[in-house]
Amino acid sequence: MSQAVQQQAKVTIKPNESFVARAESLTPQLLYRECFPTRLTRVVHDERATHSWRVEAAGEAGELPSLVLGKGDQVILDFGDHTVGSLTLRIKPVGSPPDAPLYLKVTLGEMPVEVAEPFERYDGWLSRSWLQEEAFHIDVLPHTLVMERRYSFRYVKLEVLDTSVKYKVAFEEVICTAVTSADAALLAPCNSADPDLRRIDAVSVKTLEDCMQEVFEDGPKRDRRLWLGDLRLQALANYETFQNNNLVKRCLYLFAAYPTEEGLITANLFMKPTVIADNTYLYDYSLFFVSTLLDYTEASGDMDTLLELWPTARRQIELALDRLDDRSVVRDDPSWWAFVDWHQDLNKQAPAQGILIYSMKAAQRLAELACDAYATELASGSGRSPRRPFGICGTRSGVILSVARPARFPGRRKSGWCWPVSLTGSREAPSWSAYFTRNRTSRRRHLI
Amino acid sequence: MSQAVQQQAKVTIKPNESFVARAESLTPQLLYRECFPTRLTRVVHDERATHSWRVEAAGEAGELPSLVLGKGDQVILDFGDHTVGSLTLRIKPVGSPPDAPLYLKVTLGEMPVEVAEPFERYDGWLSRSWLQEEAFHIDVLPHTLVMERRYSFRYVKLEVLDTSVKYKVAFEEVICTAVTSADAALLAPCNSADPDLRRIDAVSVKTLEDCMQEVFEDGPKRDRRLWLGDLRLQALANYETFQNNNLVKRCLYLFAAYPTEEGLITANLFMKPTVIADNTYLYDYSLFFVSTLLDYTEASGDMDTLLELWPTARRQIELALDRLDDRSVVRDDPSWWAFVDWHQDLNKQAPAQGILIYSMKAAQRLAELACDAYATELASGSGRSPRRPFGICGTRSGVILSVARPARFPGRRKSGWCWPVSLTGSREAPSWSAYFTRNRTSRRRHLI
Repeated sequence: MSQAVQQQAKVTIKPNESFVARAESLTPQLLYRECFPTRLTRVVHDERATHSWRVEAAGEAGELPSLVLGKGDQVILDFGDHTVGSLTLRIKPVGSPPDAPLYLKVTLGEMPVEVAEPFERYDGWLSRSWLQEEAFHIDVLPHTLVMERRYSFRYVKLEVLDTSVKYKVAFEEVICTAVTSADAALLAPCNSADPDLRRIDAVSVKTLEDCMQEVFEDGPKRDRRLWLGDLRLQALANYETFQNNNLVKRCLYLFAAYPTEEGLITANLFMKPTVIADNTYLYDYSLFFVSTLLDYTEASGDMDTLLELWPTARRQIELALDRLDDRSVVRDDPSWWAFVDWHQDLNKQAPAQGILIYSMKAAQRLAELACDAYATELASGSGRSPRRPFGICGTRSGVILSVARPARFPGRRKSGWCWPVSLTGSREAPSWSAYFTRNRTSRRRHLI
Repeated sequence: MSQAVQQQAKVTIKPNESFVARAESLTPQLLYRECFPTRLTRVVHDERATHSWRVEAAGEAGELPSLVLGKGDQVILDFGDHTVGSLTLRIKPVGSPPDAPLYLKVTLGEMPVEVAEPFERYDGWLSRSWLQEEAFHIDVLPHTLVMERRYSFRYVKLEVLDTSVKYKVAFEEVICTAVTSADAALLAPCNSADPDLRRIDAVSVKTLEDCMQEVFEDGPKRDRRLWLGDLRLQALANYETFQNNNLVKRCLYLFAAYPTEEGLITANLFMKPTVIADNTYLYDYSLFFVSTLLDYTEASGDMDTLLELWPTARRQIELALDRLDDRSVVRDDPSWWAFVDWHQDLNKQAPAQGILIYSMKAAQRLAELACDAYATELASGSGRSPRRPFGICGTRSGVILSVARPARFPGRRKSGWCWPVSLTGSREAPSWSAYFTRNRTSRRRHLI
């Protein structure tokens, strides 16, 4: 198993034009809303704060237009909440007529650290191009600067890199045109009496709203793509909140529209400049098409879509079963990749086996709804199927663990196929309870 | 005399709407021409070269599209000649579909040093915003990047700040859309047999062409403005080359359209967002309106313009004469500024006196053409006039010098008003010949 598979250059895509057209017709209308800074802030170094930076108030938002900034001056605007959209700055000169361009830097951050520490220091493996900073030369003032890219941010830092000795600038207005395809008017309320839960719900709903654009994006800041694994969870949250079922339907058609020649569905789609199936194929993500279609069908009652997309779903099961060995265990080798527990050092064989079972259960239900005899085949376990080896895990504990390498597990029968993980890289085999006690967070991550 | 006068905040402009309309109607049609890189280059540190950097060939221009650039890579394009215009880059991804934006830096330079040394080191008093560098985040590839600002350059450095591990980029085409209002088809040929003179002429003509835009700009890189002192010289060169006399006419009307309440003409005009008379007034520049009008009249034979603008020209003489003291010498005090010999440490009293005389001669000729009795007044020296004190300088040597402070000049009678300059700051009074021998370059600069 290797992430190298992420770059499979030679895959041939066979588009389904009917599905392409259906997806296109379901393109949502984007909803725009103007929002404004709520206050001026400054960032303060504080070891106790997240990333060691906290913000504190530096003035009312209404003070911005009277703030005159010259070379080296800066101001940080706080929009009060996470925001996704473009930015418009109305800039005027103060002093003599501008005898040199304005050189302006704009930095946008979701977290205080992003408007505190210079991006030049960044040295991660993700591209620096994701960091939201722009520099503009403005030849003519006054000027309305329209920053047409879409940003994800709460804080905006405006830095005047230079003007001239004869003039400075002021920002008469800074407007964010927020964008989403989630209609807040349709939002189902959260009825919990617990204020903590209501707060968690509010943040979750905001996150979902910001991810709902022309598709469900994995993240509106990075990497703004339609990933099947993310879609599955977002769709489930959507049914309980914004109920934009057509957006889920569109995404299902998009995935079904760009299979490989053998019918395998990509892990993600690029939406621009045209829809492109990424050459990343993940064992688990392709299977999630099945459960996402079932979830959608149950939430919407849309049998037409079920019938049209069921063959695509069935094909994912068939292709996944091709990976079973003669013991009906998902084969592990360097040629594949599953995303679950995505740390590179963790082996994905066991959770992939679990996801296959999970998906086959969804497929069985879909086949029944589609009146496909394949339902019987899945129920009976005839043909290739992982039914027997996973009987205990599937029905008794429901737990599949990531595994560094297969090992016997103490206190469990048939431990040859129910594998413990050692996150520390050690091969010692801890007890279930000891493992979960030490890895509370991981426990949640490892449960399917 | 002080440059502080450059910021005169309280001047009131009294626009002449008729002149505004006339200038507007003379707006030239800009001529566009596509041009392309002629080769790929690299810059090499060389103490013997100008600014210690020279370029050397690094490949054919045709190799550019096949050059694949990833994070940290760069290429320098040579357009073969000084060029003024916008830039268009056709960029394509190479590798997997781009899973992160392209972060691209573009630096444009007239000289090799500009594409060799990072602008971050710049620490001059002119605004850093004049340095031509841009950074772009490009979310969707392939992309045609249109850099709509107007640049002045010969060299273009393209630096890929980041892509992602999954893709790189190539530049399929880089196009400059050069712009000028000078029509090369009208260019009068240079008939000199001297190859050096022909080369000097070619560079001079190119410089003029690049400065000829919607007005005669002082420089197309910086500060792109219509200055009267520059206009005077550019117009003279234009009559011998591109012969776009209407562009001179337009500029004369522009200056005449925005006088102060008392009729004084500004040293320069901003053209955008609307025409703005800069609050800089220079004794010599206002006077150059007179000689520029005479030059234009003689080159074009356009008597209508002469008659319409003569009152404005006459007013500059009248206002300049207000500065004469009872000896008919231009008064020197901290409230004024002349641009000639613009180094701050040089006093401008003597050359200003010379420019006044020069301008009065032009005014006399204009008045004669306009059949204005003022011609007689100027010729006779009646009223306030600097006629007598400058008799010798004006008629015998034709030389006026910048002066640190008045001093007696050896070997000249009446040296009280014919002042030598000591560029070294010393007050010793050299002989004419010794002075000019030591200061060959300066001699040319000091001659009116």
